[in-house]
Amino acid sequence: MTTSISIPSACDFHLHLRQGEMMKMVTPQVASGGVSLAYIMPNLQPPITNTDMALKYKAELEALAPQVTFYMTFGRSTEGKQSRYRRCQVVSSGVTTNSDAGIENYEIYYPVFQAMEEEGMVLNLHGEIPSDHQKNICVMNAEEKFLPQLEKIHNAFPKLKIVLEHATSEAAVNMVKRLGDTVACSITVHHLQLIVDDWAGQAHHFCKPVAKYPQDRQALREVVASGRVSTGTDVRLFCIGHPRFFLGTDSAPHPSHVKETAHAHAGVFTTPLVLPYLAKIFESMGSLDKLENFACHFGRQFYGLKQKDGFEDLKVTLVKEENVVVPASYQVSNENPEAGAVVPFLANKDIGWKISQNFY
Amino acid sequence: MTTSISIPSACDFHLHLRQGEMMKMVTPQVASGGVSLAYIMPNLQPPITNTDMALKYKAELEALAPQVTFYMTFGRSTEGKQSRYRRCQVVSSGVTTNSDAGIENYEIYYPVFQAMEEEGMVLNLHGEIPSDHQKNICVMNAEEKFLPQLEKIHNAFPKLKIVLEHATSEAAVNMVKRLGDTVACSITVHHLQLIVDDWAGQAHHFCKPVAKYPQDRQALREVVASGRVSTGTDVRLFCIGHPRFFLGTDSAPHPSHVKETAHAHAGVFTTPLVLPYLAKIFESMGSLDKLENFACHFGRQFYGLKQKDGFEDLKVTLVKEENVVVPASYQVSNENPEAGAVVPFLANKDIGWKISQNFY
Repeated sequence: MTTSISIPSACDFHLHLRQGEMMKMVTPQVASGGVSLAYIMPNLQPPITNTDMALKYKAELEALAPQVTFYMTFGRSTEGKQSRYRRCQVVSSGVTTNSDAGIENYEIYYPVFQAMEEEGMVLNLHGEIPSDHQKNICVMNAEEKFLPQLEKIHNAFPKLKIVLEHATSEAAVNMVKRLGDTVACSITVHHLQLIVDDWAGQAHHFCKPVAKYPQDRQALREVVASGRVSTGTDVRLFCIGHPRFFLGTDSAPHPSHVKETAHAHAGVFTTPLVLPYLAKIFESMGSLDKLENFACHFGRQFYGLKQKDGFEDLKVTLVKEENVVVPASYQVSNENPEAGAVVPFLANKDIGWKISQNFY
Repeated sequence: MTTSISIPSACDFHLHLRQGEMMKMVTPQVASGGVSLAYIMPNLQPPITNTDMALKYKAELEALAPQVTFYMTFGRSTEGKQSRYRRCQVVSSGVTTNSDAGIENYEIYYPVFQAMEEEGMVLNLHGEIPSDHQKNICVMNAEEKFLPQLEKIHNAFPKLKIVLEHATSEAAVNMVKRLGDTVACSITVHHLQLIVDDWAGQAHHFCKPVAKYPQDRQALREVVASGRVSTGTDVRLFCIGHPRFFLGTDSAPHPSHVKETAHAHAGVFTTPLVLPYLAKIFESMGSLDKLENFACHFGRQFYGLKQKDGFEDLKVTLVKEENVVVPASYQVSNENPEAGAVVPFLANKDIGWKISQNFY
């Protein structure tokens, strides 16, 4: 029986680190979870829409977590071309926190996508369309109903690198597999674990996109544990997982007083324990050997990103132990009790794995 | 524009009235909602399993609501034959409050169903099967996956009257329509209004069975507003609604401290305003003329039940008004603040209809 694993520090390709007190609490937890490269979401208030805003935010994060290499994104694609940053996130309207300013009609962005394709930039898509009762569209099929848009954009820009963010459905897995080498998927920790039953009445499991049917979770699990041979040349990448399906946690902390209420905010908080959670889940799948590529290599490979000097491939050791109990909550601020506390994923549960030696 | 309607007092064929302080608060609200006949669920602690328990509980309810005619049910079918009561509810295991003692394998009850069919009793089925991830069964399809069981029981006992309780899906509507005159459906207030999006992160809309897709809600709405000609001889029943689809609210009060929490209890509380809610919903469907049969006649007709002497067909008048705001909550006990308060369906919302003249 495997009782410890040693892997490179992980990369999280979809992360919300918030602002203010919440940012100050969460950001140092990135490294605690074994993550050394983080791709930061722009949906703040106001949203990050230009380079100056992104640089200022990045400096704040780096001051809080100097071990972590941060990559920034924009909430709008229109300024991407001029940016010193090579990413661009497009968020459909109305389906995630602070995304009211998102977009729906993708064709008006085709000139931007064209420029991004030429520049080798990566397009991140929050692949859900807004609910429409007349068309039977709701949270359970909002992702699947978006997929024809993904295919359309891919067909129009076959060389544009596209990441379908936080995929949750069998349909998405199949589509991304089929579209070929320029289209990838990020997958969260919690969507490898949860189904719809788990957020029915359970506010801390409620996120967007919502977790779906057992067979959807099974499709996510199977693709990250699949035996497909990578087209890459790195010997580590052979036969373990799928190189276009990688970790993006979408960890999204909210204080419990906006979760345990009549209208819960959407989001699951996994940042402090990313690798222990994944060790638990991959072990339960009988696929601990697939964890490294999913969490550490495939995302960086697809994006073509590096960690900053001195932090390349530092190791994290995880050990299997009894009574590794997830904290009940994380206080947002020691100075301001009114800021509340964030209940993490699987709070009070024994996850059976912990980091014995971190990368920093 | 219709600004008032006058209809007989309503019948609620699926109602949870609880015990103790909660029962004392809720039970008088039955008549307040315009309901004069109520069919009471047995899932107390301990569950009601015999005539003596049912009689004792009935006496408590009658003392609290002397205007209301109560019909009692049993949580187990095994004593139904000996009972002075003519109903029997069968609850699948694990899918509703206090239903751990429910059943799964229906064939072992065939001798009882046989006796019930011969006696002219009515079988009530909570039509959901437990989640099973290997079989892709979860809360979203637990009802649909049960339907083959319903058909099997009906085929074995074609003369047995069966009510599929609180139906939520297009598949259930189609099945019940198809199975013919001995099989009926109760439908709640809230399932005529909600879809899955409405309970995603909204604890007060979380119930079992969960509300489903927009097309499922549309199927429920269409069948209660359909133009099918009844086979009955009563002139009121012509052309309005479907005689085997009738009101059973499944109103299930919980204090807000067990709703607005990490693990919310399942249930929506509609009892105090049943007819105003229905007036709002049927008006929004353009089908106010279908409300009377759905809420007042079809259930009693199917069950063959009467109200007690002096309460037959007393009238309720509803008027359309602005600013008919649903209370924020109902205090469980004036003497015991720790018992908390129940947040009703559509709390703080203007529902636009109120009872101007009740039946009592």
